[in-house]
Amino acid sequence: MEVKAIDWGASGTVRLLDQTLLPGEVRYLDIGSTDQMIEAIKLLRVRGAPLIGIAAAMELAVAAERRSTGGGGSDQAALEWLDDTARGLRGARPTAVNLAWAVDRMAARGSAALDSGGEEELASALREEAQKIWDEDAEMCRAIGDAGAEVVQRGAAILTHCNAGRLATGGVGTALGVIYAAHDQGKDVRVYVDETRPLNQGSRLTAWELTESGIPCTVITDSMAATLMASGSLDMVVVGADRIAANGDIANKIGTYGLAVLADAHGIPFYSAAPSSTFDLSLEAGSEIPIEQRAREEVATAEGAEVFNPAFDITPARLITGIITDRGIVKSPSRESIRKMFADQESGATA
Amino acid sequence: MEVKAIDWGASGTVRLLDQTLLPGEVRYLDIGSTDQMIEAIKLLRVRGAPLIGIAAAMELAVAAERRSTGGGGSDQAALEWLDDTARGLRGARPTAVNLAWAVDRMAARGSAALDSGGEEELASALREEAQKIWDEDAEMCRAIGDAGAEVVQRGAAILTHCNAGRLATGGVGTALGVIYAAHDQGKDVRVYVDETRPLNQGSRLTAWELTESGIPCTVITDSMAATLMASGSLDMVVVGADRIAANGDIANKIGTYGLAVLADAHGIPFYSAAPSSTFDLSLEAGSEIPIEQRAREEVATAEGAEVFNPAFDITPARLITGIITDRGIVKSPSRESIRKMFADQESGATA
Repeated sequence: MEVKAIDWGASGTVRLLDQTLLPGEVRYLDIGSTDQMIEAIKLLRVRGAPLIGIAAAMELAVAAERRSTGGGGSDQAALEWLDDTARGLRGARPTAVNLAWAVDRMAARGSAALDSGGEEELASALREEAQKIWDEDAEMCRAIGDAGAEVVQRGAAILTHCNAGRLATGGVGTALGVIYAAHDQGKDVRVYVDETRPLNQGSRLTAWELTESGIPCTVITDSMAATLMASGSLDMVVVGADRIAANGDIANKIGTYGLAVLADAHGIPFYSAAPSSTFDLSLEAGSEIPIEQRAREEVATAEGAEVFNPAFDITPARLITGIITDRGIVKSPSRESIRKMFADQESGATA
Repeated sequence: MEVKAIDWGASGTVRLLDQTLLPGEVRYLDIGSTDQMIEAIKLLRVRGAPLIGIAAAMELAVAAERRSTGGGGSDQAALEWLDDTARGLRGARPTAVNLAWAVDRMAARGSAALDSGGEEELASALREEAQKIWDEDAEMCRAIGDAGAEVVQRGAAILTHCNAGRLATGGVGTALGVIYAAHDQGKDVRVYVDETRPLNQGSRLTAWELTESGIPCTVITDSMAATLMASGSLDMVVVGADRIAANGDIANKIGTYGLAVLADAHGIPFYSAAPSSTFDLSLEAGSEIPIEQRAREEVATAEGAEVFNPAFDITPARLITGIITDRGIVKSPSRESIRKMFADQESGATA
């Protein structure tokens, strides 16, 4: 089965796969109002930074269609409506950078359409822009997958953490994009999936997504990765990244740093896969990346016990074999190699 | 509150704390039949290798009391009854070495009592022996705690894994015994507790036990230990051990090996605490210790995914700062230092 986390639904709706019910139940939701979409984002029915941005963009587009079917109004009223709706969606998860970025881009396109053609053009312009955001993300995933597949050996056993796949992006994903590409090239990869405590994105989402896509996988608890590495049956680790500093340090789901230390101790290559837009060159090092602390309720324990629950950790560049991007692989990432990748891009040396 | 996982109950019963309900509910069970005790062991209502041995021994004693109240029978019938009952208890969890050891010891004592004084002496002899097994275990825990407290700095932050405390032994435990002893010496320790997937013995049992004992603790998911170490806020790791080979390699709950590698990479001392009876000198190295693979159902995931679920892992001696035993600490454990500890003991050089 083709895993599709999002799609255009019947008139005026966006179709979402409800990720909170996976892997037990595969249920699609036809989201027919902006409030419903905001709720779906807040409750993590749709998740993954790129996918949330796409979902919000698509909702803005279908909301404009619903409004136009309802008779519309003056151009001024349409502009106010656009601002209000964009603001609501932008606030659904304030920490996801892609969400604000996608909504801002949609609002700018909508505003331009109102300027040039009035409300008649609004809905079609927004749908076009949302589709473009989606397509661009899918293309970025494909590029990452193609770049990454080059470093995957035939028959490789690959460990991944959390979910950076079809359920998190508008395409094949980043870390899983590499795995899908290698699989499609007939490389016969085997995948180990970290459970990924405390929210189990690995055992719930990645294992389901891979299985549905016909790629065999084996789930382990996060605490088993070291034993797997020591047994000699693991060839590489590939994870995503939430933010990458100018020196190549990466922020990613909690547990990533430990995997990188363990991989280093066992001589196993460790890769992070992410779009080039994940680099935040304004940050000198990973230590400047703020780490979200999440609710104690995510870890069930005795009432009197405290809980330390950071959502992400920082992996220093020295532990990273390579960062796989849509612009190629930055091997042994450093301030210099990263600066070079972006400079080459600007000068047109790579595409 | 004093945590007491086991106790003599009202006439003919053994009182057990039902560990499957912790930390949500504190319920004591009055076990009044051998079948009930076997079921309690199988369902992990009582767990921890030493504690299971003690529970089975106590059950044998009260079962003899119930039999004697019921009128008893011939000495031959009593011997057959003893054998049958012992066999049933021994089979409750075939892999726990302490269980077979305690039941065999009880059966030998019962058989000797029947020989010397007939059935009249059976029940009192068995109760005495069970109490002795319990007392010896408590004393062993105390000795481990005292030995281990010496290497705990004032104000130390200590990470532990799984549950090797009052809920696993007849006393203060092994790894937690060290923490209790340091706490009692006013060393003001802070404890971090690994959740310990997949069965959550850390977040469910250790966090509850420490909190009840007035020792503050903070629960983390297993994947957070590396970040904690990198932050500089951890001073040592103390875990238990299920079996120790002649060269100092230890088998312990899955996740232990990864912690040892991470502690080594961060320059943090790593200790294992266990009674000297845990050493299996017939095994040259940890690679000879068989590792139990447990059911896939312990890790919830997609139906089509496989699950790798070893219950234990092997930590090589080179990663262990010291093994804390009731006979003192074996620092930088090796075949030689372990042989020396046992030789000194035999020659009476240490006690």
